[in-house]
Amino acid sequence: MKKLSILKKLPQAIRWDDDVLTLLDQTRLPLEIVFEVQETPEQVWQSILALKVRGAPAIGVAAAYGLCVAMQPFIGAKVQEFMDALADQAAYLNSARPTAVNLGWALRRMQKMAEAQTCLDSRDLYELLVAEAKAIHAEDIGLCEGMAHHGAPLIKPGMGVLTHCNAGSLATTGLGTATAPMYLAHEQGVPFKVFADETRPLLQGARLTAWELAQGGIDVTLITDSMAAHMMAIGQIDLVITGTDRVAANGDVANKIGTLGLAILAKYFDIPFYVACPSSTIDFETADGSAIPIEEREADEVTCFGSARVATEATKVRNPAFDVTPNELVAGLITEKGIVRAPYAENLKKSRFRN
Amino acid sequence: MKKLSILKKLPQAIRWDDDVLTLLDQTRLPLEIVFEVQETPEQVWQSILALKVRGAPAIGVAAAYGLCVAMQPFIGAKVQEFMDALADQAAYLNSARPTAVNLGWALRRMQKMAEAQTCLDSRDLYELLVAEAKAIHAEDIGLCEGMAHHGAPLIKPGMGVLTHCNAGSLATTGLGTATAPMYLAHEQGVPFKVFADETRPLLQGARLTAWELAQGGIDVTLITDSMAAHMMAIGQIDLVITGTDRVAANGDVANKIGTLGLAILAKYFDIPFYVACPSSTIDFETADGSAIPIEEREADEVTCFGSARVATEATKVRNPAFDVTPNELVAGLITEKGIVRAPYAENLKKSRFRN
Repeated sequence: MKKLSILKKLPQAIRWDDDVLTLLDQTRLPLEIVFEVQETPEQVWQSILALKVRGAPAIGVAAAYGLCVAMQPFIGAKVQEFMDALADQAAYLNSARPTAVNLGWALRRMQKMAEAQTCLDSRDLYELLVAEAKAIHAEDIGLCEGMAHHGAPLIKPGMGVLTHCNAGSLATTGLGTATAPMYLAHEQGVPFKVFADETRPLLQGARLTAWELAQGGIDVTLITDSMAAHMMAIGQIDLVITGTDRVAANGDVANKIGTLGLAILAKYFDIPFYVACPSSTIDFETADGSAIPIEEREADEVTCFGSARVATEATKVRNPAFDVTPNELVAGLITEKGIVRAPYAENLKKSRFRN
Repeated sequence: MKKLSILKKLPQAIRWDDDVLTLLDQTRLPLEIVFEVQETPEQVWQSILALKVRGAPAIGVAAAYGLCVAMQPFIGAKVQEFMDALADQAAYLNSARPTAVNLGWALRRMQKMAEAQTCLDSRDLYELLVAEAKAIHAEDIGLCEGMAHHGAPLIKPGMGVLTHCNAGSLATTGLGTATAPMYLAHEQGVPFKVFADETRPLLQGARLTAWELAQGGIDVTLITDSMAAHMMAIGQIDLVITGTDRVAANGDVANKIGTLGLAILAKYFDIPFYVACPSSTIDFETADGSAIPIEEREADEVTCFGSARVATEATKVRNPAFDVTPNELVAGLITEKGIVRAPYAENLKKSRFRN
């Protein structure tokens, strides 16, 4: 697959050059663009914990390279010492965000690969770890390009495309998930507009998506979440594409709070609502959306923003981080292998999208 | 109509005691509760301009009393001098927010009443102005109680009621519009919960509604606008009541941005969506919602959150302040005279709700 040139224009959340790992500090976006060299495993751990790097695919890649950083002091050590340290460092990095699936997955993959190679010396083992991290990185870029190729034809000239939260380049190491079709359509010269929901409470749409799409040269307009219905009503929106945190076996989609509302609005206005996801996001162990637990977060995310308090501390708050969109509202799942459509239970099984 | 005792518990946005006008500074809510005595017409003008007092009915009452404050220096003057000053001061106060309908309406009413009475002396004229301002105030309280009595029976024990923006006591001098049925149901001992949308961009729900309902002893939970669909999906919402800025002759409803989205979600989940409004809000000159102009406001309201900037200044923004909900989504209009239901064009005409 030809590498897309637009990728060069996009901010690189994660870079690995000459054995040096650099992360873009996403907590300071969009007002400050700061790249931080990661010199120690402690720093990588802290960067993952503090959400300087975020998005499931990006966390996996950062952890893989982070493990390489952690193993650099052990180059030249005896193989057994190197392997013991590898186990320790992987366990340590994995503790930064214990529930992040890609974090554990990438670290286990790195460790297993090394365990299968114990006849090599520690320098060779280190080089193999770097190669494996690069492979994880390249695979992520490839998944994004797959979604880009299958999703881009949905975007027709003159369309307005709405997205929610950040399922963007910043959450991956490639073109993103929901944004991938947008970047490819833009590279292909299709003229279209994107509307980015600000995505309360944490404002990933305002802070990250509006910024990264503009960096990529895409015509993007920021709106509050409450404006989506009006923008649809006045004919500004022709297509909705979001990302997802988990797709159930029946095609129900869990994603950032607010996604369900958009899907219902899209149905009312007869606008197709698509979800972009690598096939690894499809969870065949979860029968339907009702089995997906919804994380409830701190009240302060709703009653404050940054230093600005907008409601008293006594205010009762609900703060569910995700919602579940029933499959009947989903026009299609844009995966790296193609678009899956209803009936989902049947078609997801047929596509053998097992992890 | 018996005055409701809950009114005493609620913060009074506007007070007139012994010829002294006091306003609650709503720009500092909910973190600071500051009442400011209004000593000069300049101060009243500034309070209206700066939104220290807000909400169409409240602005009308504040302007009427403000005109009394402005005329106090002319007590004892000759009648002609008094009347000239009255015209000047009314014109001056009206310039604080030239598009606020109730502002001009209340000031004209005060002036006309005085013009019909030129045989009195200036002290008597002043007393008549105060009496007229009190009448405007009492009428507003009465309208709210009317909406309360007709709307309260909609709220059944155990219900979850969703509201948007602040159509509350703070926007009127009584029980509010959308909140009026809630306060009365609460006084009647009906147990229910209210969910208040924070209402981006200006957060009137977080700053004002969540606060005033809690002051009134109502069980209120603050959510972001993007959480409404999820709260409906998990069965927490049984009824939606909002206010409105203008109802067209066919029953289409213009209200704070985000209202249309709620109405569509309510339809999807089969939850009744009601709009509370004094009959003066029904505009028979406007055939339908398409004729209602939608004010587009400053980008900074979206790119900033309180004092905190969340998107770069270069970010393109849309910021429509209102949206229009088509009559087909409205279960009923809760007015002071009763609940009006579809077909609206016919039933609104029948009710002779002419201003």
